[in-house]
Amino acid sequence: MGYKLEYISRLFQKTSGKRIEHYVITRIWHLLDNYEIKMSPQQYVSRQQAQYALTDVYFPQLGYHIEVNEPAHYENIERIQQDLKRIKEIESNTGQRVFVIDCRDDLKGIHNQINKIISEINAKVNNQIQQGTFEPWNPENEHDPNFWKTKGHISISDEVSFHRIEDICLLFGADHAKTKMGFLRKGGIQHPIHTNLFLWWPSEKPRSGWQNKYNEFNGTIIETHSDKEKKVKHYNNYSQETHTRVVFFHYKDILGLTNYKYVGVFTNDIEKSNAKIGTVWSRIGETINLGTGEFSVKE
Amino acid sequence: MGYKLEYISRLFQKTSGKRIEHYVITRIWHLLDNYEIKMSPQQYVSRQQAQYALTDVYFPQLGYHIEVNEPAHYENIERIQQDLKRIKEIESNTGQRVFVIDCRDDLKGIHNQINKIISEINAKVNNQIQQGTFEPWNPENEHDPNFWKTKGHISISDEVSFHRIEDICLLFGADHAKTKMGFLRKGGIQHPIHTNLFLWWPSEKPRSGWQNKYNEFNGTIIETHSDKEKKVKHYNNYSQETHTRVVFFHYKDILGLTNYKYVGVFTNDIEKSNAKIGTVWSRIGETINLGTGEFSVKE
Repeated sequence: MGYKLEYISRLFQKTSGKRIEHYVITRIWHLLDNYEIKMSPQQYVSRQQAQYALTDVYFPQLGYHIEVNEPAHYENIERIQQDLKRIKEIESNTGQRVFVIDCRDDLKGIHNQINKIISEINAKVNNQIQQGTFEPWNPENEHDPNFWKTKGHISISDEVSFHRIEDICLLFGADHAKTKMGFLRKGGIQHPIHTNLFLWWPSEKPRSGWQNKYNEFNGTIIETHSDKEKKVKHYNNYSQETHTRVVFFHYKDILGLTNYKYVGVFTNDIEKSNAKIGTVWSRIGETINLGTGEFSVKE
Repeated sequence: MGYKLEYISRLFQKTSGKRIEHYVITRIWHLLDNYEIKMSPQQYVSRQQAQYALTDVYFPQLGYHIEVNEPAHYENIERIQQDLKRIKEIESNTGQRVFVIDCRDDLKGIHNQINKIISEINAKVNNQIQQGTFEPWNPENEHDPNFWKTKGHISISDEVSFHRIEDICLLFGADHAKTKMGFLRKGGIQHPIHTNLFLWWPSEKPRSGWQNKYNEFNGTIIETHSDKEKKVKHYNNYSQETHTRVVFFHYKDILGLTNYKYVGVFTNDIEKSNAKIGTVWSRIGETINLGTGEFSVKE
C-alpha cells in the first residue's frame, strides 16, 4: 500500500478527535495534492508529549505552521490576545511562519481561508524549486543513516528520525556495542572523534528514574530524576563546565513505531538550571556537520 | 458554523474507523468541492442498522454508490466473485450504479481511481443541470414537510427525513392527535383521505415487543414480535388481504438527531411472509403523489 498512504491515512485517523481541525487537515492535504510535501501533525506525534507540539499542522520543508482555531478561541478578548501573543512568539522563536484558520466562518469561508494558505504553500514550494533548495518528502531517507552520512550534515528541518539507536551510532561512526551496560542500555554515548560532543537519546518516558521534558517552543530539555538526591547530584555535576549534546528525542510515531528524532544540539544552561528543577539543556544548534562536528543555529 | 460543515465534519469523524475508506471519503468530498452534492455514508447512518447499508458512500441525487475495497477483499477468488455478484445485484435491484475503489493500489493509483469517479460524478451533475433535473442539496428542505407538500410528491432519492411524527402527519394532512394512545404512541396512522394507505413509522429498536428489520438491498421490512403468539396472530391478520404502507423509517442521523426517513411504499408480501418469520413487507413504490396517493416504482 505504500508508506505515504499508510502515513497520511493514519495521520487523518489520529486527528479525527477534533472535528473541525480534522476537516481542515484533510482538506489541506487533498487540495495541496502534492506527495512531495510532508505534513506533520505535531501534536499527535505522541499523546504523552504535549510539550512537543507547537501548532496543529507543520510543514517541515517550508517552516510553515497552521493553527486551526475552533470558535472557543474567540470567546473572550483575553484568549484572543493570548493566541496572538503565542503566535508572535512562535514566529520569533523559530523564524517560521504561522497561519491561523478562524473556524467561526461557514463552510465557504473556511474553504476560502484554506485556499489562501494553499496558494502560499505552493508559492513557497515553487520558490524553493527555482532556487534549487526544495527537498521532496522522502520517508525512506528520513530513516536511513547512510543517506545522511553521504549528505554530510543534518538539520532539524530534515526530519531525520531513526528507528534504532544502532542507526544513531552508525551516523557518527560510534561503537554501538558501547551503548550497552549488561542488560541495560545507556542513555547516550560520547562522539568517537569529537569528544566534546555527547550523543544523547532522551525519552519523556521515565527510565530508571531519569525523566526528560522536551519543550520545542523554548528549545529546552529539562533532565531530572525522581530521586531528589540523584537530581541534585546530577545538577551539581553539570553546573560548572560546558557540555554539548547532539540530541535524538525518543517517541512513538504515527505508525506506532519507535523513533529517535534529531532535535538539535543542546548545551547545559547554567542560568536556567538549579537544584530544584534539575539540569536544563538549551538548543544552541539546528544543523550539525557530521564530518567536522561543527554546528550552527541556521542551515 | 452551518449545517453542511457540521454534517460533513461529523461524517468524516464517524467514518474514521476504517482508515483507507476514510481517506477515500475525505478525498472525494474535498476534490468534488461542490456544496450542492450530498454525500451519504449509509453504513454510518446508524450503527445498529447494518442492514440499512448498501455501500460505503452514496450520492442520492445521482444514484451513484462507491464501495471502497480494502486489500482483504481480494484475498481469495471466492471473495472477489462474491463482491462482483453483490455489486451486480445492487445495480440490478436499484437501477443505481456502483463504483469500486481497489485499495491494493498505492497512493497515486488510488488517487487516479478517485479522479475517474469524480469525473463521472461531475459529468452526471452537468447532465442533470442541462436537463433541468438537478436538485441541489438543501438540508433544510429535506426536513421541512411544507416544502414537500408544496412540491406535491416525494421520492426516495429526495432524502425526505423528518425529525418528528408531527411532520409526517402534516405532510399528509393527518390528525396528529390521533397518533397518541394515552401515554403510548401508535406505530402508524391511516391516511385521512386515501384510506387504503397506512402511514407507518417503524423502528429497528423494539417497541413494546414489536421489532422491524429494514433490508435496503432487497427492499423489504420484516415486522415481527418477540411474543410468539402475537407474531403469529399478526401474520394471520396480514396473510389474506392486500395492505399498503407509506413508510418513514426511524433512525438517529449523523448529528445524533431522531429522524423518520421516507423509504418508499410497501405491501404485505404474502409469498415471503410466514408464521415463523413474521410479516414481510416489500417495496412497491419509490415515489408517491401526495395529492392523489398514487405511487410508482420510478420517478
